[in-house]
Formats: sequence, structure tokens, C-alpha cells
Amino acid sequence: MRIGVILSGCGFQDGAEIHESVLTLLAIDRAGAEAVCFAPDRPQAKVVNHLTGEAGGGTRNVLVESARIARGAIADVATADADTLDALVLPGGFGAAVNLCTFAVDGPQAEVDAGVAALVRAVHAAGKPIGAICIAPALIARVLGKAGTPTLTIGTDAGTAAALEACGAHHENCPVDSFVVDPVARIVTTPAYMLGPGIKDVAAGIERCVAEVIKLAEPAAV
Amino acid sequence: MRIGVILSGCGFQDGAEIHESVLTLLAIDRAGAEAVCFAPDRPQAKVVNHLTGEAGGGTRNVLVESARIARGAIADVATADADTLDALVLPGGFGAAVNLCTFAVDGPQAEVDAGVAALVRAVHAAGKPIGAICIAPALIARVLGKAGTPTLTIGTDAGTAAALEACGAHHENCPVDSFVVDPVARIVTTPAYMLGPGIKDVAAGIERCVAEVIKLAEPAAV
Repeated sequence: MRIGVILSGCGFQDGAEIHESVLTLLAIDRAGAEAVCFAPDRPQAKVVNHLTGEAGGGTRNVLVESARIARGAIADVATADADTLDALVLPGGFGAAVNLCTFAVDGPQAEVDAGVAALVRAVHAAGKPIGAICIAPALIARVLGKAGTPTLTIGTDAGTAAALEACGAHHENCPVDSFVVDPVARIVTTPAYMLGPGIKDVAAGIERCVAEVIKLAEPAAV
Repeated sequence: MRIGVILSGCGFQDGAEIHESVLTLLAIDRAGAEAVCFAPDRPQAKVVNHLTGEAGGGTRNVLVESARIARGAIADVATADADTLDALVLPGGFGAAVNLCTFAVDGPQAEVDAGVAALVRAVHAAGKPIGAICIAPALIARVLGKAGTPTLTIGTDAGTAAALEACGAHHENCPVDSFVVDPVARIVTTPAYMLGPGIKDVAAGIERCVAEVIKLAEPAAV
């Protein structure tokens, strides 16, 4: 089983949340599946100094920085072929809301990276499951919320939940060690660092989220 | 229990190996201990584009980049107080051999960052255990190999093993899912990505390595 993983940089303040990304790769490998990493080949929306929380200098590329998490085994998401994947998982971090799409700035009017949107739509249209972690469900709501009403969670934050509902999704509150599954839309979501508080709590939810994605991706027993 | 973790950047080609670092933090949190992250406040020896493997542009700071893995909760290793720690763990990645010390360039003649060397010596002198992952045992060999003959592993690479022995250590081969413990020196080592092949294999060894460090750090039963 091949599971696409869309990364959005390397560091939670301007890219992919590193713990969430690594825990996703671990859960996939432990399930006996193969993680196939992708990221958009575009400049990061911003660079943040993670020691101070202030703006950092220079510019960085989302694909190049994501390659740090993927140990180099990563491709431009614009080249991804949904036919070769059995499922898709999107870790969170601000990168999911500033690099993969502009949700952090534009809310329900967010623009979505064309390659990311195309892959999400193609995987979904093929009836394959999608997992989304932390703030990444906002992107799923924006891409898939027009055609249906997927049930999603980003934890318990009322403002963010309202923005997801404005995209056309239905939000359910969820604790960090659990997940929400929409068995019709085949979408699985978990709050992770939208709630925290620590890595073991986030790991519990991500392990369950990925396991549910893989369960949905398996051929139905006859 | 408070366990110091020394990071060396963010990305295995020029900093800390991200998977090893996150798996270390996860194992510490799951054991009910607190990870206290440190890194040296100095420029990286190099910046590598992890997509191409070629030299990247610009300069980066080891402490600032390590903060991405630590989610901002990190301090300059020069300010670390061994009295406040119960143990120390060093994840690997090239950063451990180019930023924390110069082993990758200078081998057994490696220079070690003064703050890192002081913390390793102080923790060791207090009889507290030290865990070292991947190539980080080379640093431990260089700092502690003069006063004793610690038994360590970096996996099975003969050339690297010989360099550790030239530092005054004794090397034992070890598979990725296991660890080597020196109960006298109170040093625990595991090969991780010196062997690979994948994250689940590396995770198995790191979990066992951290568990052994914590066992050694616990007060002896009376």
C-alpha cells in the first residue's frame, strides 16, 4: 500500500509541524505501508525564527525544506499521480495554512496550491481515503466542502471550526488522542497540536488517524 | 525526571537527524519524563539542500534551526546546568559530527563545542547516564575516551568504529533495533540511521536506548 504524504515545509511556524510529520511517517511504516512524500515547489509564504517567534531572514522553498523531514525522498506535488496512491495524509503546522493554501490569512476564501488541490480532488474522486491532521482539515474543507459536507475536526477552537463550516464542512469537537471519521467522504481527521499538550498525546491521535485511513484504504472483504 | 537533549540543527545532512530527534522526544515523554532541549548558539558548519544533496545558500544558526524540532522550547547549551538534569541524550545526524564537534572532518582529532563538551563531562562526572544515537557516540568517545574506555556502538561501519577506538573507546557491532550499554560508564548507544533502513527500525532502537537511559537514571532500589 502506497500512502501519499503532503508536507508544507519544516517547522510548525512556517512549514509542516515536524512531530506530526514524523509520527505520520512512523505510523505508515509500522503498518507495513509505504509513505510517498510530496510538497509544492514554491517559496514559503514566510520564514519564522522558531527560537524567537519573530520573522526570520531570507527566503526558503517549501519542497526543499520539506526534504529535510523526508530525508530527500520527496517529489513536487504537481507531478503526483493519484492512480499510484492508495490514500493521502496531510500533517499540519502553519505551513498547511500558509504554503499549501492561504487559510491562515484568507479563511473560508483561501486559495489552494493548484497541485495540492488537484491531488486531493483526484484521490477523493477515486474513492480513496484522506487523513488530515491539526489545521490541515481546513484545506480539505476548502477543496471538498463545495461538492459535499465532509465531517471534520480541528479540535475545539470555535473560530476555526466556524471557518471550516463556512467552507461547507461539518465540524465535530474531538480530543487530541482520538479522531473523527466521515465514512461516506472517507476523510479522517485528528486535532494533534491544535490541542496538544505534548508529543505523546499528539502521537496517540495520529496513530489512530493513520490506522483508520489504512483500514479505509484496504479492499473490502468479500 | 528531566532529561537533557542536545540537538545540532534540523535535517540530517547539516543538522540533527529529524526522525531520531522526534523519536527521542516521544520516548522521553511516553516514559513520563521531561525533555529539556539544548543546542549550541553558533553558525552551522554548512547548509545542505536536502532535495539535491548539494550545498545550499546562506548561513543558518544551530540553536535557531534546532528550535524547529523543539517547537521553540530550547536553550543555549552553554547555559545548561548538569545539576538540574538526570540524564542526557544526543540524537544523531551529520550535525552531531559537524556542528557539535568536527568528527566528520577531523576524526579522532575532532574539536568539540565547548558548551557541549562541558555538559557531557559534568553529567558523566555526576554519575548520570548518557544516551547517544547514530553518529553521536563519536562525540562521546572524543570527550570521554581519554579518561576511560567506554563501550559504544555506531552500528557496523568498520572505518567509523576504528575512529571511535582511536579516540579511546571500545566499539561493539550492534543491529538497528538494539543498543549497547556500558553499565560502568553509564553510556547507552544505538545505531539508528547509521544502519537504517527505515523509521520503524530506527524507532525500535531509540525506544530501547532511551528506556535503558531512564532505567540507569532511576535511583537504585534499596
